[in-house]
Amino acid sequence: MSKINLNPSALAMVPFVSVADMMKIVNTVGIKKMIRGIAEYIEADFKRWPEFDKTPRVPSHSKEGVIELMPTSDGELYGFKYVNGHPANMARGFQTVTAFGLLARVDNGYPVMLSEMTVLTALRTAATSAVAAKYLAPKNAKTMAMIGNGAQCEFQALAFQELLGIETVRLYDIDPDATSKAVRNLEATGLNVVSCNSSQEAVTGAEIITTCTADKQCATILTDNMVGAGQHINAIGGDCPGKTELHKDILLRADIFVEFPEQTRIEGEIQQLDADHPVTELWEVMTGRAKGRTSDTQTTLFDSVGFATEDFSALRYVRDQLEATGHFKNLDLLADPDDPRDLFGMVNRAKEA
Amino acid sequence: MSKINLNPSALAMVPFVSVADMMKIVNTVGIKKMIRGIAEYIEADFKRWPEFDKTPRVPSHSKEGVIELMPTSDGELYGFKYVNGHPANMARGFQTVTAFGLLARVDNGYPVMLSEMTVLTALRTAATSAVAAKYLAPKNAKTMAMIGNGAQCEFQALAFQELLGIETVRLYDIDPDATSKAVRNLEATGLNVVSCNSSQEAVTGAEIITTCTADKQCATILTDNMVGAGQHINAIGGDCPGKTELHKDILLRADIFVEFPEQTRIEGEIQQLDADHPVTELWEVMTGRAKGRTSDTQTTLFDSVGFATEDFSALRYVRDQLEATGHFKNLDLLADPDDPRDLFGMVNRAKEA
Repeated sequence: MSKINLNPSALAMVPFVSVADMMKIVNTVGIKKMIRGIAEYIEADFKRWPEFDKTPRVPSHSKEGVIELMPTSDGELYGFKYVNGHPANMARGFQTVTAFGLLARVDNGYPVMLSEMTVLTALRTAATSAVAAKYLAPKNAKTMAMIGNGAQCEFQALAFQELLGIETVRLYDIDPDATSKAVRNLEATGLNVVSCNSSQEAVTGAEIITTCTADKQCATILTDNMVGAGQHINAIGGDCPGKTELHKDILLRADIFVEFPEQTRIEGEIQQLDADHPVTELWEVMTGRAKGRTSDTQTTLFDSVGFATEDFSALRYVRDQLEATGHFKNLDLLADPDDPRDLFGMVNRAKEA
Repeated sequence: MSKINLNPSALAMVPFVSVADMMKIVNTVGIKKMIRGIAEYIEADFKRWPEFDKTPRVPSHSKEGVIELMPTSDGELYGFKYVNGHPANMARGFQTVTAFGLLARVDNGYPVMLSEMTVLTALRTAATSAVAAKYLAPKNAKTMAMIGNGAQCEFQALAFQELLGIETVRLYDIDPDATSKAVRNLEATGLNVVSCNSSQEAVTGAEIITTCTADKQCATILTDNMVGAGQHINAIGGDCPGKTELHKDILLRADIFVEFPEQTRIEGEIQQLDADHPVTELWEVMTGRAKGRTSDTQTTLFDSVGFATEDFSALRYVRDQLEATGHFKNLDLLADPDDPRDLFGMVNRAKEA
């Protein structure tokens, strides 16, 4: 006779990293060290790109925004992220982007970690940008312009400080309060932070330009005359159909680098171009199959939309911190009857208890 | 100056239904009443089929099994389920199928409920079968054969008792222990339960045949000679490419009803047939656009693979029980900074606390 299963077994339990836990992990590890760690996992996973099961994310569009599922697998672990993008949320007191994600074992399909990913996505997006810039930005770049000073801004600034050695960030946002917030948050980081009154002013003298705005429309945050020879553009904000940031003329003269072309052609800046416009895949640059930056006068563009492997890498990194930090709770997410066929009996016996 | 956000706000919290909570909900509501309730939600959602954003589920196949994401939306709510199918799990002490799911608001992308779905999937699969059988099975059917007596068996038996008035179930499984388990579990249900020594014996005199086996292969659980005129076949087990239960000859003479043809042609019994073999969509029968059973001699087949709207309906049902039953916990899943743009500040201030 089966025992009455009142306390869920170890098999039923999935470690859960709440927002509070994630903030504790970030602050225990240290935010710059954590961005560096995630960047290392992201780079390692890009370098074994062919091992991954890759698919464009699965969107559900509405007039207010989009909800997306982003799955991938390396054959051993499976991961996915749930993420929304709702540009009008901020005005209503909600986050534009919230997210959570999961890692599971491929061999038996059992989840091994559920985690908040709003904070983690901010870290991985910044880490990805910095990893790409290692291969694409001018050598010894010291100054980065940042257009759009919302939730992603400070994470980008720290990632480029930590991984590229950026010393000065030049900030501009159409909302001066956003810039003030970023200036305040970056006070103690050691970065030289300059508030600017226009995009044009922000990009002056910058070797790297990061665009990170959130309107769900085809905007023109950068026009062709604003981009000089040799600059690297890190374009983060254009990430769904009908949402772009750069003038087409910039795209036509830049060398364009992307994560996963099948997804970027739908969602990225290059949705403005012909479907066969040449682009280079980031993993090919990282593995030496393709060239990154080849001259001082070249304009490079990382047309970043965010790809599932980056979330997978970030989740792997967090999972590897769980034991040392202890910042998680076990969640009774999985049914684990004493006899796997006896799900009904498990439910029935719970009544008796 | 923003306050230090130590306690997550109400916005950050998502109600979570654990396995223990789900069992409490089932036992508070009553299992038959809950199956009936879920069936009503499923039928209501099938009847407004055109309102849903529908896509075949997104699978990640491995040699051991499959992990799938099943999203859908009715424009107001978005839902998805994570579910695995690993036929070899049972022998290793794991569940063949485990699942969890989520409902979210479409207008802002915020999750409104996270729930275990291993137990809930068992309930919704049984409810869906019974709803389909209301339209397709012979009138006044009293006896159902059940081939495959695993985790889904008893739920099917109760659903058909509650919604169709089935009085007798005739059980067969290649593993007699599975049958014994089902007999034991169904003792107090009021059903007349008959253990059989073969599939042939089980189907004798049954107006409805339910096949629910789990091998990941093309099996032949039913051959043509075993199916008599006028029977309704409720085929549950064939639900991924290369996994079927019925001999092709049965399919060729049956009238076939499916949930979402685009998905069933990939995963269902009809993967054995030509891509243009005629099938009828269940929602069309329920809304009167197409005919269900039209004669006493017709062989009807519900080629069920499970569709995202059924999970959506089941999640909606559970959400509507939360307030009355109180069986959930709040989970700190969403980051909710005081200023939505100030994610970095939130993380930073957590350090000071």
